Amino acid sequence: MLRTEINELLTQTGPGTPMGDLFRRYWQPVLLAEELSANDCPPVRVKVLSERLIAFRDSEGRYGLMDEFCAHRGVSLWFGRNEEGGLRCPYHGWKYDYTGQAIEVPSEPETSNFCANVKLKSYPMIKRGDVLWAYLGDPDKRPPLPEWEFITVPEGQAYTSKRLQECNWLQALEGGIDSSHVTFLHSGSLDSDPLFKGSRGNAYNKGDLKPFFEVVDYEGGLLIGARRNAEEGHYYWRVTPWVLPNFTMVPPRGDHPMHGHFWVPIDDENCWAWSFDYHPTRPLTEAEAAAMRAGMGVHSANDENYRPLANKDNDYLMDREAQRRGETYSGIKGIALQDASLQESMGPIVDRTKERLVATDAGIIKARQKLRKAALALAQEGAEPVGNRTQDQKVRSVAIVLPADQSFVEGIGEAMVAKPGVPQTTV
Amino acid sequence: MLRTEINELLTQTGPGTPMGDLFRRYWQPVLLAEELSANDCPPVRVKVLSERLIAFRDSEGRYGLMDEFCAHRGVSLWFGRNEEGGLRCPYHGWKYDYTGQAIEVPSEPETSNFCANVKLKSYPMIKRGDVLWAYLGDPDKRPPLPEWEFITVPEGQAYTSKRLQECNWLQALEGGIDSSHVTFLHSGSLDSDPLFKGSRGNAYNKGDLKPFFEVVDYEGGLLIGARRNAEEGHYYWRVTPWVLPNFTMVPPRGDHPMHGHFWVPIDDENCWAWSFDYHPTRPLTEAEAAAMRAGMGVHSANDENYRPLANKDNDYLMDREAQRRGETYSGIKGIALQDASLQESMGPIVDRTKERLVATDAGIIKARQKLRKAALALAQEGAEPVGNRTQDQKVRSVAIVLPADQSFVEGIGEAMVAKPGVPQTTV
Amino acid sequence: MLRTEINELLTQTGPGTPMGDLFRRYWQPVLLAEELSANDCPPVRVKVLSERLIAFRDSEGRYGLMDEFCAHRGVSLWFGRNEEGGLRCPYHGWKYDYTGQAIEVPSEPETSNFCANVKLKSYPMIKRGDVLWAYLGDPDKRPPLPEWEFITVPEGQAYTSKRLQECNWLQALEGGIDSSHVTFLHSGSLDSDPLFKGSRGNAYNKGDLKPFFEVVDYEGGLLIGARRNAEEGHYYWRVTPWVLPNFTMVPPRGDHPMHGHFWVPIDDENCWAWSFDYHPTRPLTEAEAAAMRAGMGVHSANDENYRPLANKDNDYLMDREAQRRGETYSGIKGIALQDASLQESMGPIVDRTKERLVATDAGIIKARQKLRKAALALAQEGAEPVGNRTQDQKVRSVAIVLPADQSFVEGIGEAMVAKPGVPQTTV
Repeated sequence: MLRTEINELLTQTGPGTPMGDLFRRYWQPVLLAEELSANDCPPVRVKVLSERLIAFRDSEGRYGLMDEFCAHRGVSLWFGRNEEGGLRCPYHGWKYDYTGQAIEVPSEPETSNFCANVKLKSYPMIKRGDVLWAYLGDPDKRPPLPEWEFITVPEGQAYTSKRLQECNWLQALEGGIDSSHVTFLHSGSLDSDPLFKGSRGNAYNKGDLKPFFEVVDYEGGLLIGARRNAEEGHYYWRVTPWVLPNFTMVPPRGDHPMHGHFWVPIDDENCWAWSFDYHPTRPLTEAEAAAMRAGMGVHSANDENYRPLANKDNDYLMDREAQRRGETYSGIKGIALQDASLQESMGPIVDRTKERLVATDAGIIKARQKLRKAALALAQEGAEPVGNRTQDQKVRSVAIVLPADQSFVEGIGEAMVAKPGVPQTTV
Repeated sequence: MLRTEINELLTQTGPGTPMGDLFRRYWQPVLLAEELSANDCPPVRVKVLSERLIAFRDSEGRYGLMDEFCAHRGVSLWFGRNEEGGLRCPYHGWKYDYTGQAIEVPSEPETSNFCANVKLKSYPMIKRGDVLWAYLGDPDKRPPLPEWEFITVPEGQAYTSKRLQECNWLQALEGGIDSSHVTFLHSGSLDSDPLFKGSRGNAYNKGDLKPFFEVVDYEGGLLIGARRNAEEGHYYWRVTPWVLPNFTMVPPRGDHPMHGHFWVPIDDENCWAWSFDYHPTRPLTEAEAAAMRAGMGVHSANDENYRPLANKDNDYLMDREAQRRGETYSGIKGIALQDASLQESMGPIVDRTKERLVATDAGIIKARQKLRKAALALAQEGAEPVGNRTQDQKVRSVAIVLPADQSFVEGIGEAMVAKPGVPQTTV
Repeated sequence: MLRTEINELLTQTGPGTPMGDLFRRYWQPVLLAEELSANDCPPVRVKVLSERLIAFRDSEGRYGLMDEFCAHRGVSLWFGRNEEGGLRCPYHGWKYDYTGQAIEVPSEPETSNFCANVKLKSYPMIKRGDVLWAYLGDPDKRPPLPEWEFITVPEGQAYTSKRLQECNWLQALEGGIDSSHVTFLHSGSLDSDPLFKGSRGNAYNKGDLKPFFEVVDYEGGLLIGARRNAEEGHYYWRVTPWVLPNFTMVPPRGDHPMHGHFWVPIDDENCWAWSFDYHPTRPLTEAEAAAMRAGMGVHSANDENYRPLANKDNDYLMDREAQRRGETYSGIKGIALQDASLQESMGPIVDRTKERLVATDAGIIKARQKLRKAALALAQEGAEPVGNRTQDQKVRSVAIVLPADQSFVEGIGEAMVAKPGVPQTTV
């Protein structure tokens, strides 16, 4: 249970809010690279952390991310012409380069200094992996470029998608941290989804409905261990990192690619669920890639605006017969939408004064505490947020069987460190 | 004309409001029995008196009506699995019985007392006739079960439907009380609707466009008499009861089944119009039942969510030619939608500071006064509301020709008392 | 840049606002005559200056414009029966004449004086040209009937349309005043639109991307001159009047019909863009009329509610390839929607505290100043607004080539005065 003011602190990420300021200290995924697929291609509207921006790729391939609206009269630059090194407003021809700097105002004499004083708010945006990342904070505090393993593996080894989720980012993040629901909500999918099925771990998963959770601090955030019974004298541990503020992973299953998420606030009532899959040591197979593109695993089948085809307007295509037969536990098809449907059903911003947490929510509780502390420490003392160093980001989740008397932290050792060419630790 | 504060008092029925507290002292229809048609069938969302609830029917046929949202993290139990004696949240498997009591929380040790302390807000819901009735008030004040004649006649003698009406409940109720509009709005339907046409009373109805209204107190509410000229020295009286807070009837026509309504607040801007038909002494004919199912009489043709197919989004399928020819007086087809269209056109909550009432509105004026007094008496003195006794509910409406010098109260005598096996008094 | 309070002053036109009071001193177009095409035809809802009204045409052809809602219980008179000299509410038969006066209340004795005291708020509405004009202000201050040339030319010489624009009226007006955007936004259409192409002026237009603007006061509002280079020693002047509060014209091109607009507030976030075309001395050709009906020139292709088929819900059918090829500068087809799309993209009411105006915005700046002064002078001193005299309205826009040393005011002489039978001055 949270007090109202803490719930507001954690869920509000617009400009000037403590959580908003914290988010503005991290590179965040804002577009799939495919959305700006060529030089001079059409610009794309971006709403992130409650700011309305326009993204474009100029004639030389540089990415621009700036105020959506022309400095002159406020027209949306989405209607703009992306040409010859800049984005031109179609109303009176004002033109901006990728930094937001006005470079041509046709009505003004060329000899005037007018352009020099016109600059749109803009943010750096760079491509890493299949993702365009933006940094919306103070330029002097800009962290190193993102180093997550899924964006640094060789080409062909990763796949990334995004989908709209119509609720506050924290509801979505908490689903990513909380692996206790897998036993219930996703139980039907463990055996059927081509990107999940067939691992020995699934049997442990289904064999023990009362996992024990152990959550330990780690420099970038938390390590969340879920312990289930394995063979006599052994435990099956699923261990996953949460890195501040909004990176989570799912522990691996056999040789399947590993997967994880970013949960990026659009505004306070919507977020992007970013979902990635990658294998550290081999290319994705054609079958795997096809399943991902089809919306299986952690991905989803979406419309052209990346909104899931199964959504709240059609009750997520609820299938009561599939629910009754246990094909799907909730009647909703697909792991991603199983999560999204329930998280959205809580309302745009769930009232956490009414919740009733239990031991298996330990990860959620600790993550909220860390987020709150980090936001307040930044606001009050300017404390540097954690999670931006390369070593914070070079993490993996791990699935492992350990002797009953061994702590999981000791047991996984360096298995959670992402090392090029080294396979994941998985059961 | 009402003062703003009285309009608010009468129209607001959420938790903690005076009218809301009054409504919470009565059994109210909340679902058609067909909506929970079998044990372990899918749960159904219910919004009533501004509360969001979930209704279900358990493995033993018991009805549950409780908070829509899981006590754990706030997921909607609409996604729940209705199985083995309870409704189970699909997120982490928390399970509730039909009283809202948690009966299983899988993550907790079976030996713990955890469940005992988790109980959702819940209300009794019972089946009477084709209707599921709920009581949302103080358990100690729970009135006897509903005894309306339409739910106690033998099977086959009644038909009940509901439709969404997109305005405040009081606008809808006032339409039910006000029989003066029949002469105008419904004039086209008296001759054509198979459930209305062919009675001698219709001729009186059309022959006197200036009915005189007499409204008298009666223990459960009001008796509203509309007097029109009949043969020399006689009056045609249409007399109908209003029982607090929201039960109205329509006086009978010949041997047609009698009909009436409940107007149940969903929230302050929407209500359910419940419509019933029944004959006290014989089964409905196949033709009558078919006409009712087809949306004739007081019923309507609806979509799968009980929203009329003719609604404000399509201007109620207004047919100006039918209006011009007088087939329908307003151009809208069907008695139910003729009422709904006009009541919705007043806006979600009509501003009664601007109205201009006349003598024929006497029933409306007195009903408002009684509602206001009952709500204030309950709030200030805890006064027991009227309308809950069996004798209050065993009422009928009456259509009768009386000598000009006889008062209608004297003239109808016991005709308004519902007695099993006794036919209605009708012309 | 405007201060917030000035932006609010200029954009709010509801009852009791300074700009609303100013608008209420002018005849305004409210319906196309075709919308009330016959005596006793269906009534039409009108929302103007944030007032909800009903318009009808009675059995004798008189136009009524009055409160949409019945004085009795607030039912929308859109459902009314328009018959025998009045509009009758279908609920209880109350009937109103074209002045809003109740003329029949069936429930009341005919001998009573009841009707005499029931009168709906109503406004005079008259037909001039193809337009129904209404005056919503103080009857004692009613100005002479509108005398714009497009409504006084002989039949067959004019065409008028209207379209919904989903933003504040001032954004739309400012587009009409600002001719500097033509060079950019509409550049693709000058050569292709059958109602624009083929004039010598278009070559001047395209040959000089840095027009110089000169804005001079004139009794009814402003004269806005745009000067571009023509042949050696000459300038091409496009001169257009703005008449308070919301009349603008477009300078002519060759022998094409002239065109102009009214921008009429519906409420503060929507307006009607009225668009007219007329030729002072000859009938429109069949080809011209067909092009106008098809939505070319300043018109648009609309649905049955006069909302453009290309609208914000479908991104105005943006065609990026047409944008890239330069067929259309912004990718949106048609001059009207090119304007509307950008003006709507600014938001329902653009925040003018953020704009950055330049020399070519001189017309906009002066028009705002005049509007503000007129509204304040009316509010504070009751000063009579300008623009209502016949000579204020008998104006034309002009396109002319003048020697470089001649002022445009001197050069156009009487060319901007509309005189029956005299051709426009055009290049």
